[in-house]
Amino acid sequence: MPNPPVGCVIVQGDEAVGLGFHPRAGEPHAEVFALRGAGARARGATAYVTLEPCHHHGRTPPCTEALITSGVRRVVVAALDPNPAVAGRGVQALRDAGINVAVGVLETQATRQQAGFRSLIVRGRPWVVAKYAMTLDGKVAAPDEGNGQVSGEVARARAMTWRNELDAVAVGSGTLHSDDPALTTRGLSGGRDARAVVFDRRARSSLQAHAWRPGSVLVTAPDANTSAFEAAGVTVVQTATLLDALTGLGRLDISSLLLEGGPGLLSAFLDAGLVDEVRVFIAPKLLGLGLSPLTSPARRMHEAQELRDVTVETLGPDVLVTGLLSDIPCL
Amino acid sequence: MPNPPVGCVIVQGDEAVGLGFHPRAGEPHAEVFALRGAGARARGATAYVTLEPCHHHGRTPPCTEALITSGVRRVVVAALDPNPAVAGRGVQALRDAGINVAVGVLETQATRQQAGFRSLIVRGRPWVVAKYAMTLDGKVAAPDEGNGQVSGEVARARAMTWRNELDAVAVGSGTLHSDDPALTTRGLSGGRDARAVVFDRRARSSLQAHAWRPGSVLVTAPDANTSAFEAAGVTVVQTATLLDALTGLGRLDISSLLLEGGPGLLSAFLDAGLVDEVRVFIAPKLLGLGLSPLTSPARRMHEAQELRDVTVETLGPDVLVTGLLSDIPCL
Ligand SMILES: NC(=O)c1ccc[n+]([C@@H]2O[C@H](COP(=O)([O-])OP(=O)(O)OC[C@H]3O[C@@H](n4cnc5c(N)ncnc54)[C@H](OP(=O)(O)O)[C@@H]3O)[C@@H](O)[C@H]2O)c1
Ligand SMILES: NC(=O)c1ccc[n+]([C@@H]2O[C@H](COP(=O)([O-])OP(=O)(O)OC[C@H]3O[C@@H](n4cnc5c(N)ncnc54)[C@H](OP(=O)(O)O)[C@@H]3O)[C@@H](O)[C@H]2O)c1
Repeated sequence: MPNPPVGCVIVQGDEAVGLGFHPRAGEPHAEVFALRGAGARARGATAYVTLEPCHHHGRTPPCTEALITSGVRRVVVAALDPNPAVAGRGVQALRDAGINVAVGVLETQATRQQAGFRSLIVRGRPWVVAKYAMTLDGKVAAPDEGNGQVSGEVARARAMTWRNELDAVAVGSGTLHSDDPALTTRGLSGGRDARAVVFDRRARSSLQAHAWRPGSVLVTAPDANTSAFEAAGVTVVQTATLLDALTGLGRLDISSLLLEGGPGLLSAFLDAGLVDEVRVFIAPKLLGLGLSPLTSPARRMHEAQELRDVTVETLGPDVLVTGLLSDIPCL
Repeated sequence: MPNPPVGCVIVQGDEAVGLGFHPRAGEPHAEVFALRGAGARARGATAYVTLEPCHHHGRTPPCTEALITSGVRRVVVAALDPNPAVAGRGVQALRDAGINVAVGVLETQATRQQAGFRSLIVRGRPWVVAKYAMTLDGKVAAPDEGNGQVSGEVARARAMTWRNELDAVAVGSGTLHSDDPALTTRGLSGGRDARAVVFDRRARSSLQAHAWRPGSVLVTAPDANTSAFEAAGVTVVQTATLLDALTGLGRLDISSLLLEGGPGLLSAFLDAGLVDEVRVFIAPKLLGLGLSPLTSPARRMHEAQELRDVTVETLGPDVLVTGLLSDIPCL
């Protein structure tokens, strides 16, 4: 069972005296690392945590105990525990010990950070984030042109950080063939490479493509011949449906999947109701005839799928619009 | 010869004591109206003007004289006179009289306001603003569906104000047929209706369409039969090219044209290099297969037409992206 991504900062006056994050299951929680860093300077300080401190004896002792013992005066919590059976208990324990507790600060951001964790726990499959970049006339590529850059540097750098944050990056066989993307976090210092996932039902992609490396995943049909891929160290998931494919990725501990296209794969996910979040870069330029982001069957305009919790940001010359199609799962 | 749109505010302490705008050629300038409103309270005040005050005896006495006589202490000018032969003279005259003058405050906004005036004077044709609304997957309409609303109320209200600010609103025969738009500023109190212009080379649009009203303009081919339109009080412009059509609209004193679509007409303008500015509403929803904003011939991605001076704004759930394809003409 994976653990949620949690961060903690201890602030004394104007100074951050302790920082911590939870590196992986079995290791101490974020609060413990932060309190270790702060030492005696935790006394009278404020602790900021992205998730409600735990109040049960699990693989580690409860963080509420560590916070109370440290002498912090105030705890600011972004989001309550996603498990409704225990939500609020950590906060109550702190308050009972006379600590001032604020809850819900930057809650939306914290909850979004935990979407993958929550999805894997609750649904057994990754949180799926569809990402594409289009021109101001809605085109993701010129006809018959691989790899023409749509967005500018700042936007591309942002997309790189997502490959670092999410557990896996997926493309369809069409994009693999036309763009041959490396799907790495090249240029990002300290970046971990997300796992590369290729959806190719017939398993006919070239093994020379850059996306194949140890740990890469091929998602293909049950009857496809996958021996060459297995011999090359590629993990193979064979399923008949996209939902089963996602469950297969969940079993590989992939809690979040960045779907980088192209239109064919994206539309298949969307039509199956399996896209949870959408992130679109819009470059302020006009292309004319070209590829549209989606090939999904036509709807009426009033039946278009609306995004919720929309955010808008400018990144250099480009605009980034994000929004949700699913609710972030609760335990 | 049209006059530029100019506004003036006289501010004494924290209070706006005089407001003025230039209503039309032959009438006094903005400064005169504002100074009349301020009366004796102009003494020691600051005058804000969107355009450099004139310093020549034209149809009205020079505004520099009026400002100097009024006793204002400071003048803030957004943009210098667009005529390079006289630019700076008004500012110099004020400074010579001991008035403190600041130039270039909100200059971009002021210059954009004057784009129509400058275009008509310099190029003999209107400044062309292409406007469309699309979904986050780049679709302006569902297939075979007239009039499905793309953007929300706030965005539509903004588009209404443009119909009020620009001199004319144009659609192609396709949009006239499928949407039958009224092209009025309905719901905008104090709104003047922009002139409706319909591009219909064969003059076969129904005269029952809402866009036809006295003052509406039909742009059609030289050999089209236009008698029924003329009989209905419609102004007819017959030309073979879009450039000539714009010159014809310029002769009707139309200094700015809001091109409201659809894809066919927009693309013809764009391909002829006749779109000066673009304003796009993006609604955060996904449609699937549908109409793209443009039908222009394919380019390579690096040859896409880039917008300059891009602005981004959120309007309710929607995003508005604007930018220029042309430079605002200088005299
Ligand atoms: N601007 C951007 O953000 C962006 C991003 C990516 C790509 N692109 C562009 O998109 C173009 C490629 O588009 P594309 O649509 O051909 O590529 P794609 O979506 O990457 O690949 C489509 C292929 O995915 C395979 N696939 C595997 N599982 C599937 C499933 N369950 N449902 C449907 N298809 C499945 C299908 O091939 P099999 O039947 O053989 O499995 C299908 O032909 C390129 O021009 C590329 O440059 C643009
Ligand atoms: N979401 C939006 O912002 C928006 C806005 C407007 C329209 N729309 C949608 O767009 C669709 C209509 O698209 P459309 O492309 O058929 O409509 P359109 O662009 O309004 O009209 C195209 C027609 O304009 C005429 N035209 C006149 N002069 C022309 C020239 N110089 N070059 C090219 N064409 C010229 C042509 O007919 P002739 O050859 O007979 O002259 C052409 O068929 C509708 O579904 C409508 O709902 C969406």
